[in-house]
Amino acid sequence: MFSPRVVSLVPRTGPRRFMSTASKLTTVEVNDKTGIATLTMCRPPVNGQNLELLLDIKSSIKEIENDSSRGLIITSASPKVFCAGLDILEMHKPDQQRLRAVWTELQNVWCALYGISMPTAAAINGHAPAGGCLLATACEYRVMVPDCRIGLNETQLGIIAPKWLVSGFLNILPKRVAERALTQSRLFTTDEALQEGLIDEIANSKEEAVEKCAAFIGTFSKVNPVARALTKLQFRAENLRQFHKEREQDVENFLSLVNRPEVQKGIGAYLEGLKKKKANKQ
Amino acid sequence: MFSPRVVSLVPRTGPRRFMSTASKLTTVEVNDKTGIATLTMCRPPVNGQNLELLLDIKSSIKEIENDSSRGLIITSASPKVFCAGLDILEMHKPDQQRLRAVWTELQNVWCALYGISMPTAAAINGHAPAGGCLLATACEYRVMVPDCRIGLNETQLGIIAPKWLVSGFLNILPKRVAERALTQSRLFTTDEALQEGLIDEIANSKEEAVEKCAAFIGTFSKVNPVARALTKLQFRAENLRQFHKEREQDVENFLSLVNRPEVQKGIGAYLEGLKKKKANKQ
Amino acid sequence: MFSPRVVSLVPRTGPRRFMSTASKLTTVEVNDKTGIATLTMCRPPVNGQNLELLLDIKSSIKEIENDSSRGLIITSASPKVFCAGLDILEMHKPDQQRLRAVWTELQNVWCALYGISMPTAAAINGHAPAGGCLLATACEYRVMVPDCRIGLNETQLGIIAPKWLVSGFLNILPKRVAERALTQSRLFTTDEALQEGLIDEIANSKEEAVEKCAAFIGTFSKVNPVARALTKLQFRAENLRQFHKEREQDVENFLSLVNRPEVQKGIGAYLEGLKKKKANKQ
Repeated sequence: MFSPRVVSLVPRTGPRRFMSTASKLTTVEVNDKTGIATLTMCRPPVNGQNLELLLDIKSSIKEIENDSSRGLIITSASPKVFCAGLDILEMHKPDQQRLRAVWTELQNVWCALYGISMPTAAAINGHAPAGGCLLATACEYRVMVPDCRIGLNETQLGIIAPKWLVSGFLNILPKRVAERALTQSRLFTTDEALQEGLIDEIANSKEEAVEKCAAFIGTFSKVNPVARALTKLQFRAENLRQFHKEREQDVENFLSLVNRPEVQKGIGAYLEGLKKKKANKQ
Repeated sequence: MFSPRVVSLVPRTGPRRFMSTASKLTTVEVNDKTGIATLTMCRPPVNGQNLELLLDIKSSIKEIENDSSRGLIITSASPKVFCAGLDILEMHKPDQQRLRAVWTELQNVWCALYGISMPTAAAINGHAPAGGCLLATACEYRVMVPDCRIGLNETQLGIIAPKWLVSGFLNILPKRVAERALTQSRLFTTDEALQEGLIDEIANSKEEAVEKCAAFIGTFSKVNPVARALTKLQFRAENLRQFHKEREQDVENFLSLVNRPEVQKGIGAYLEGLKKKKANKQ
Repeated sequence: MFSPRVVSLVPRTGPRRFMSTASKLTTVEVNDKTGIATLTMCRPPVNGQNLELLLDIKSSIKEIENDSSRGLIITSASPKVFCAGLDILEMHKPDQQRLRAVWTELQNVWCALYGISMPTAAAINGHAPAGGCLLATACEYRVMVPDCRIGLNETQLGIIAPKWLVSGFLNILPKRVAERALTQSRLFTTDEALQEGLIDEIANSKEEAVEKCAAFIGTFSKVNPVARALTKLQFRAENLRQFHKEREQDVENFLSLVNRPEVQKGIGAYLEGLKKKKANKQ
């Protein structure tokens, strides 16, 4: 059904990328028939959001925006994980300059995706905790495969979901459900997510998820695109205005939280646990 | 059950009406027993909101307000349409002065109905797209007949539901449902509207709809009317404050959107389509 | 299961209490095993919130906060009533100075409970109208026994639920449900409250309600407490900011409403009715 055409990504050495990299951590394919662009994250094994992946996602969103696609679908090349959120290595004994850049780019990715005027949908083909949930909830529609988990579980690691991320979360969930989920670090199963409205549909495979996202984007075919864009941006304007007003302070808050000794200790213990798990498997 | 008394409308040549008209595009009946006023729109065939109808609705609301009725029910004299929204002829190759007056009066109708302190309910005895949905959602309660459609489908014509109208829509629907409905120009069927909470009850006829609206207004019989009024106005104050702050800019936004050549072209094509349909029927 | 340790309350003659009293209108017990503090209101027969009870509740909340408990559960010593709300005698032919203090302390109780960073839950072991509902909705979780009533029915007496109280109510209920409930003085049955989300669980006894509240608080055991606290406070900050901005004006509004002759008349009639009921029972 899909005859994807691979669009060359923006030049990796271009002037807009302040960290040049040879890696292609995302791909963008445009379906010639539907005009819908699919952005795929490909940083194995779990699309951990390090600085480079975040920069790549941002570039790809901007590229799709400039290409005037009919819609944007975000998905993952990994079989079981949509996106595991911030790469925890970026937060462990961090270089302060780089940590600042990481959070700034996470902000940039969110506001690029949340504030894009074209229709957006997430084909959530695996787990989507924290930064993975951020990407999914910035979209207008969410389709998820069975037996996975999604949620903003930042408090588990000792950090918090920032106000701008919560504001988008509240576009989707009732306040009562959202506050409890945020404080409990709740990861919703696919079924729970559907029931609470955090996702819109379940699909049995990534392909089906992408198709359902495309069908959602297709519902706008008879709508005036300018009026659609203005309606979406008007709806999201207040959250974006608030975000821009507070984004600098938000970077400081994040840095001060991550640098707390007990948070560093928690992250260290978490990494230690991961290593042991890996060792046991080998 | 109802013994209606026809209340004379405000004088058509009165100083508050800047466009005098001999037409009676609305009627107001007050039930002597219940004290509830029913405002009926009667501009066949579909209660298209031209300037005169909007002025008439506003006058009738103000009249009911001044008459200290026990409640207000809004309905339509047309058998299949509650109100089709703005008369599209007002937007086609418009006289700018008149177009400005039309939008200003739509604003006035909304804030008069949304901000009235007495109990309000809509007996939606037919379709209620766009400006029809505006009237219904400005009320506190909605009863609708089967097999009709309701929604804010402005984007279909290339215009957008303004912020103040969206703010009232969000008093009724969850954000997720509202954003999607607005961008998709979604018209909810009666059953869908009930399921999503956009309407509160279904009635099998206009008479039954009016009765159910009256029953809703009756639920306030044991409540202190001053405290009820203060509670309602406090609840709606922030939306009204925002509306008054932005209403002038909103008129400019509407005018600039309607005057776009592609919007004019779309409206022209729509009218052409209506003409052909009519011709085919004859 | 629980081995309660009675914590001495703050000294009744301490410098922070501007009205010294020998009564103990609340008790605080801390479960040694779970670290959860249970605040019990004990002003028979219905925990009517007079000035002394409000001061006591406030002190107990502050005490629990300073004691760094793991969580707070609020409940009642009365068998059939959680809390009946403001003691109506405080509003009848009131001493203005004292009435001002009563409302100020109701505000203080709300913002102490709403803004405390630790997990909070209400074991609603009986009816919870008005000020009782205020306490319950300031918590993060609500468990209620069958066949009781809960709601903000202020308009029945001619007063209104203030903006800050409504803001917390809206953390729990959809706007449509909340506005209607507030204007109708709706008291939800236990079953209705569960269905609308106003409570989270039903329990067959006070003991079971307290246990379920403790289980809810237990869900935070694996969450970083600092991050949890920041997340909760960030979520509630805007409502609290607004409250502090308007709290003085809110006291004036309340006083002016209560002092209206028709409100005084209504309160008088209500008290008269209570007396007659009592006389008939004897």
